[in-house]
Amino acid sequence: MKRITVDLGARSYPIYIAAGCLNQIGDIVSSHQLERKIALITDENVGPLYSDAVEAALKASGFQVSVYVLPAGEASKSLETADKLYEYLIRDRFDRKSTIISLGGGVIGDVGGFIAATFMRGIRFVQIPTTLLAQTDSSVGGKVGINHRFGKNLIGAFYQPCFVLIDPQVLETLPLRERRAGMAEVVKYGLIADETFFDFLAGHLEDVIQLAPSGDVEGVIETCCSIKARVVQQDEREGGLRQILNFGHTAGHALEALTNFEFYRHGEAVAMGMRCMTWLSWQSDFISEADFSRIDALLQRFPQPSPQPVFESNEILEKIYSDKKVFDGKLNVVLLSKIGEALVKKNLDPKAMLAALEWMNRSSDEIKQYYR
Amino acid sequence: MKRITVDLGARSYPIYIAAGCLNQIGDIVSSHQLERKIALITDENVGPLYSDAVEAALKASGFQVSVYVLPAGEASKSLETADKLYEYLIRDRFDRKSTIISLGGGVIGDVGGFIAATFMRGIRFVQIPTTLLAQTDSSVGGKVGINHRFGKNLIGAFYQPCFVLIDPQVLETLPLRERRAGMAEVVKYGLIADETFFDFLAGHLEDVIQLAPSGDVEGVIETCCSIKARVVQQDEREGGLRQILNFGHTAGHALEALTNFEFYRHGEAVAMGMRCMTWLSWQSDFISEADFSRIDALLQRFPQPSPQPVFESNEILEKIYSDKKVFDGKLNVVLLSKIGEALVKKNLDPKAMLAALEWMNRSSDEIKQYYR
Repeated sequence: MKRITVDLGARSYPIYIAAGCLNQIGDIVSSHQLERKIALITDENVGPLYSDAVEAALKASGFQVSVYVLPAGEASKSLETADKLYEYLIRDRFDRKSTIISLGGGVIGDVGGFIAATFMRGIRFVQIPTTLLAQTDSSVGGKVGINHRFGKNLIGAFYQPCFVLIDPQVLETLPLRERRAGMAEVVKYGLIADETFFDFLAGHLEDVIQLAPSGDVEGVIETCCSIKARVVQQDEREGGLRQILNFGHTAGHALEALTNFEFYRHGEAVAMGMRCMTWLSWQSDFISEADFSRIDALLQRFPQPSPQPVFESNEILEKIYSDKKVFDGKLNVVLLSKIGEALVKKNLDPKAMLAALEWMNRSSDEIKQYYR
Repeated sequence: MKRITVDLGARSYPIYIAAGCLNQIGDIVSSHQLERKIALITDENVGPLYSDAVEAALKASGFQVSVYVLPAGEASKSLETADKLYEYLIRDRFDRKSTIISLGGGVIGDVGGFIAATFMRGIRFVQIPTTLLAQTDSSVGGKVGINHRFGKNLIGAFYQPCFVLIDPQVLETLPLRERRAGMAEVVKYGLIADETFFDFLAGHLEDVIQLAPSGDVEGVIETCCSIKARVVQQDEREGGLRQILNFGHTAGHALEALTNFEFYRHGEAVAMGMRCMTWLSWQSDFISEADFSRIDALLQRFPQPSPQPVFESNEILEKIYSDKKVFDGKLNVVLLSKIGEALVKKNLDPKAMLAALEWMNRSSDEIKQYYR
């Protein structure tokens, strides 16, 4: 079993990675000396596939498990769902020493983590991410939260888990489109932090997605988690460095918001956003045209949903300015200084952003593959 | 201006105490280098008296202030109120670098702090407590939260403010009953941590309540904050020592819960709860009969609301067992080992608790003063 430590002083925790490790959850929870009562939160997609196995493994180790199954999808990240979960936990006599385990993708990790952060002023929390996106990105770093009807992720906390358990085998049941979309965040890690990793991904994109041995998905997950741990260790609450993890997310998030978070998978929108910012990195003379072309060629390989919606650049820009990453009307974005290195450009001229969005709109017909 | 530091490493903060310091809020916020946008949360009692002055002082120092006035009382500590506050903050374009200032008693401190802890994963927070209870107890230590319809304070966090500003002058407009009730927590600090302070309170109880110079309310507040800071520094998240701050709260909280948190002021119920635990401390041979009598004589001077409700000891005990301070069915209580020193008695025999509740019920006619 691979083990990566996220070193945050008193809040440090390990990430365990191993094919088939789902069945070892009982032993691992025991080794972390968690108390008897466990709330297992999952969704209607993941629950039927894996919650029985997790529940059985926990019970075999003497834990008392209650399973809560939420509807799959973004709608479960609501105050209403939170209210229900609080109610269930109170009804089932969970206390300050109980543990919440999130078994699922980003939504389940976010909502389960938010409940753990706020129920009785914070109880123990474990992440078992089951999507490529959650395994390589969202389950690490302690960002938890729910949506407000006026905006996404506006209610939340930084709340670190006791540990993260990653079983790459569960990706076999993940729909192909989810795996492809998740790869966008994986490529992001190469772009912002590791040129060798980017090179590997450029050569093996499809192998990873198809879970072929040559794709070494376990190694890919390990690399992403290591990079994220390194960044989060230096800047847990996103005061500075951690912002580089938002590469591609400014325009990407606006595209998601403009389509009510129902049209794009997160990674698909991020792939578009990264194209934008890579172009801007080239236009700003941070990277060469050759590097731009190499990166853009890879990003074009991320299929987009179809029919592609058409938004005026101005409309996208306006949505960008309503994002919570904008402070006091100032736009900070992440650019590449080379392949494997990112920088935060503070107070970007809105005209530059607009130019990048216009380029993105013009060049969207370069993308050859679409989901229908 | 007096200054007490709550030393919590990266989360350390000062408590400022001075008569009339409310008008200096602009300078103090400036000295803490907070950003321009401030949300001032208050209630319908405190707002009309003090929010204009606070708003003016902040604006004079260049801050941009939005004032949100909640209904007074416990009902504002709800998910519905939180939802509304999130909505206002989003609508008024508050961002991650904005600050929330709570101006009011425990309810406003708790709900404002909870919003600060969870809006955009945590924004800056300032406490300006205006009741004796909040100034001596609830504004220090970072406990924030709201109620769930199934229980009090079940949703919350440990979230420390940037600073606490205490102006004892505002107590002049606080109803006498509130001042009396607040004194119960003050006496608690003497009992659990400082015999000299207890002696002073035994001799000057009414002077403090009447804000007479001989009562030195500023010194009283300073002593309470210093004791609380010392305890919280050693155990921020109530893993051990901090539990001593709950002296009298086990039975007290049950009495409040049985009367829907509408009949007793918190301090009145805590005074009853402290009588209970003082009796049990004597019965357990931790303190002498003489000390018990001395303490009980002081606690009898806390008037109770009338008509006193009658609950069977069994009924109170059952309510105690549904409290969030009970883990895994085990009751931990705080007893006095002497005047000025407390201990945590783990896994108390329910029979002992029952005996204490029965004594409390029998002896309640010793209390001479009632509110009608």
